[in-house]
Amino acid sequence: MRKVNIAVVGCGVVGSSLISQLDVKHQRIIDEFGIDIRVPKILVRNKDSKREAPVTSMLYSKDENDGNFTDVLTTDVEEIVHGEDIDLVVEVAGGIDDAHKIISAALSNSKSVVTANKALLALKGNELYSLAEKNGVDLLFEAAVGGGVPIIRPIRESLAVEHINSVRGILNGTTNFMLTQMTRDGMSYDEALSQAQALGYAEADPTADVEGHDAAAKIAIISLLATGANALAQDVQCVGISNISTDDIATAKKMGYVIKLIALVEERDENSVFLRVEPTFVPVDHPFSTVHDGFNAVFVEGEKLGEAMFYGRGAGGDPTASAVLGDTIDAAINISHERKGAVVGFAFDKKIADPREWESKFYVSAEVTDEHGVLVQIAEVLAKHKVSVEVINQDGHGETARLLFITHETADGNIKDAVGDLATLACVQEVTAVYPIMG
Amino acid sequence: MRKVNIAVVGCGVVGSSLISQLDVKHQRIIDEFGIDIRVPKILVRNKDSKREAPVTSMLYSKDENDGNFTDVLTTDVEEIVHGEDIDLVVEVAGGIDDAHKIISAALSNSKSVVTANKALLALKGNELYSLAEKNGVDLLFEAAVGGGVPIIRPIRESLAVEHINSVRGILNGTTNFMLTQMTRDGMSYDEALSQAQALGYAEADPTADVEGHDAAAKIAIISLLATGANALAQDVQCVGISNISTDDIATAKKMGYVIKLIALVEERDENSVFLRVEPTFVPVDHPFSTVHDGFNAVFVEGEKLGEAMFYGRGAGGDPTASAVLGDTIDAAINISHERKGAVVGFAFDKKIADPREWESKFYVSAEVTDEHGVLVQIAEVLAKHKVSVEVINQDGHGETARLLFITHETADGNIKDAVGDLATLACVQEVTAVYPIMG
Repeated sequence: MRKVNIAVVGCGVVGSSLISQLDVKHQRIIDEFGIDIRVPKILVRNKDSKREAPVTSMLYSKDENDGNFTDVLTTDVEEIVHGEDIDLVVEVAGGIDDAHKIISAALSNSKSVVTANKALLALKGNELYSLAEKNGVDLLFEAAVGGGVPIIRPIRESLAVEHINSVRGILNGTTNFMLTQMTRDGMSYDEALSQAQALGYAEADPTADVEGHDAAAKIAIISLLATGANALAQDVQCVGISNISTDDIATAKKMGYVIKLIALVEERDENSVFLRVEPTFVPVDHPFSTVHDGFNAVFVEGEKLGEAMFYGRGAGGDPTASAVLGDTIDAAINISHERKGAVVGFAFDKKIADPREWESKFYVSAEVTDEHGVLVQIAEVLAKHKVSVEVINQDGHGETARLLFITHETADGNIKDAVGDLATLACVQEVTAVYPIMG
Repeated sequence: MRKVNIAVVGCGVVGSSLISQLDVKHQRIIDEFGIDIRVPKILVRNKDSKREAPVTSMLYSKDENDGNFTDVLTTDVEEIVHGEDIDLVVEVAGGIDDAHKIISAALSNSKSVVTANKALLALKGNELYSLAEKNGVDLLFEAAVGGGVPIIRPIRESLAVEHINSVRGILNGTTNFMLTQMTRDGMSYDEALSQAQALGYAEADPTADVEGHDAAAKIAIISLLATGANALAQDVQCVGISNISTDDIATAKKMGYVIKLIALVEERDENSVFLRVEPTFVPVDHPFSTVHDGFNAVFVEGEKLGEAMFYGRGAGGDPTASAVLGDTIDAAINISHERKGAVVGFAFDKKIADPREWESKFYVSAEVTDEHGVLVQIAEVLAKHKVSVEVINQDGHGETARLLFITHETADGNIKDAVGDLATLACVQEVTAVYPIMG
């Protein structure tokens, strides 16, 4: 039987859960796959930190003798990336610079790598994929996107020869938790954020989550796999949730929608894709509308497959460790067969399309003065920018009125220009909200 | 480059779509996977039948010369199962006896097999899996369950070392289409059936769909993979949709539920599983409630992964052919590497548990005489069978009243016994409906 020695980089929540799962399932993995997975090295920053150690186990030994958890801890990167006894490096430490060095060095030394590091892949993905390709080893990263939602694997494998037209995702658990509180319990944005922070869903500085940067990093990774567009997080047109009002949520509900932070990659044509993250009106009968709390979901539209959705826990040590474990076993199988898995989509080199050209229906709300002729003025501005309206609704209350409208499909640029012009009209006090509507 | 020769058995909707996809993607499969897939034989019943033939293509040739579609058609099974030039048999003809003979013979001759034949697998699955195992070849069947929903693959791979507690599915497109019509448009069962038949969703004899047998076959296949319980379709406790009234649907809606035909495999304990197909109350905020029309979905609960859902088109030539294509490429990759894929779950031999022991909340409705003391009599019967009630609701209208109640979690057997006793009370005219409620 083939022994596969893995080095685990990082021994926090995910690392501990992974090692514990490997420990419990050691014999089952042998029975099912004929692979004896050992963990001769665990790279940590400080060997003396308190951590939950699994029981002493066969895992920590390269030979037939029992090993000891503390003996395998090391702070020396060289033992990991150059160690001749290491077949596979599993990086679950996070961070950018150190992780980048470790993964690059491991791949360059022809060691396969499994990682859950979305920030790194969104920044350096293509460089690392190329390095893996060049050295004939695997670089697997199911856990980097969507935690417990198996999305990378179906895209890599099942959909390998499927032409994917678009991928939409609810990819950030923190914002989805907050939007669920705002929708279900009528909380304000600030209340929802406080609660998310109190429960440990949101960081003290929630910027990366609430401004959509985390979702942007994930859709950038998906983009390369699904469409071959080599995107970085910064290429994504990105709007967060911090401007969503309770009023917007209530109005959406009344009209049969819920507001979700949707990340999107969509083919514009053969050569380019749109990449967006933004709060979006989702119809209540769309599967996305029932993705609550910390759950993630990914909705794929394929040419032949049609629509498919994957849904699961977006974060947490155990689901993430499960995804890492799946990749680890896959990479170990490939090592034992001296092959690597298929790499999909990297042959293309699509461009990022101008976000203004993206087309959708939009919802727009504005505060206007309640007087005759307002609708005419607004209609003229919309017509000038080729925006045609499907539904329009005016609620008058004394001196001001609230105007809501839903457009037919139109370009994002047309809506932006029209809204800019509307704001200059004397009768328009404020354009309070603009959201795209999922079809 | 490795050539892999496949024989396609059946050239109907799925077979034609598969061959056309293989044709279009021939070069891409070569580029991505280094495999040159050819189709030197297509087994048909009648060579002269009219069929949509893809253009003449390299596919039909074993060597460098172009082949011709009609030349590869054959009616001779021996050419397929004994043909030395055939590496892989792809069965998309359906039916039981002929398909069973062909697949058995192919596996016995060490040819890998891809099939979309759920009826056969639900009846002979374990025999065929063992035969594949014994001969060291693949038997892949993503398309047999859920068409375009990738469920078999995640269970086989991602979830390979995940302990699965339960799998629930909306696995039959015809009944889901009908229930959608009944829920959305208020159609009666008969109207929905007529429409499904008119649109080609339902057969002239709809029994296999509406009585739940098709869903039972699928959950039996899933059961073996997900839990190791070697079940046949006939082991599944099965109730169809033909007794669902518009009244039940309307009441469910009012209470915040939709009625879906849910197939279930759930671990009872280490040694046994429950297997059921039945109309079920699904809460409107559960992802299943937004699975409309011909879509299928599978909801998996894993020990570490938590909840995950897979959703997609349940049927149709193209989605099914996409799933078959994915399996075909997988099997071809394995053939080119002289290995076979992992087989999961077959090591167990779980039993089918007594369905009366399965626990759930239930919804019960009954017509009762509108008089004092009715509730007391009913409460006594329920208490006798250890059924406790969470909500009770009585609508009096003249001489009769409608009584609805929702129970706390209780055993299926207790409910059945209680309902049997209720029906014997003088004050109960009829127990009109009993449905389990998803938690």
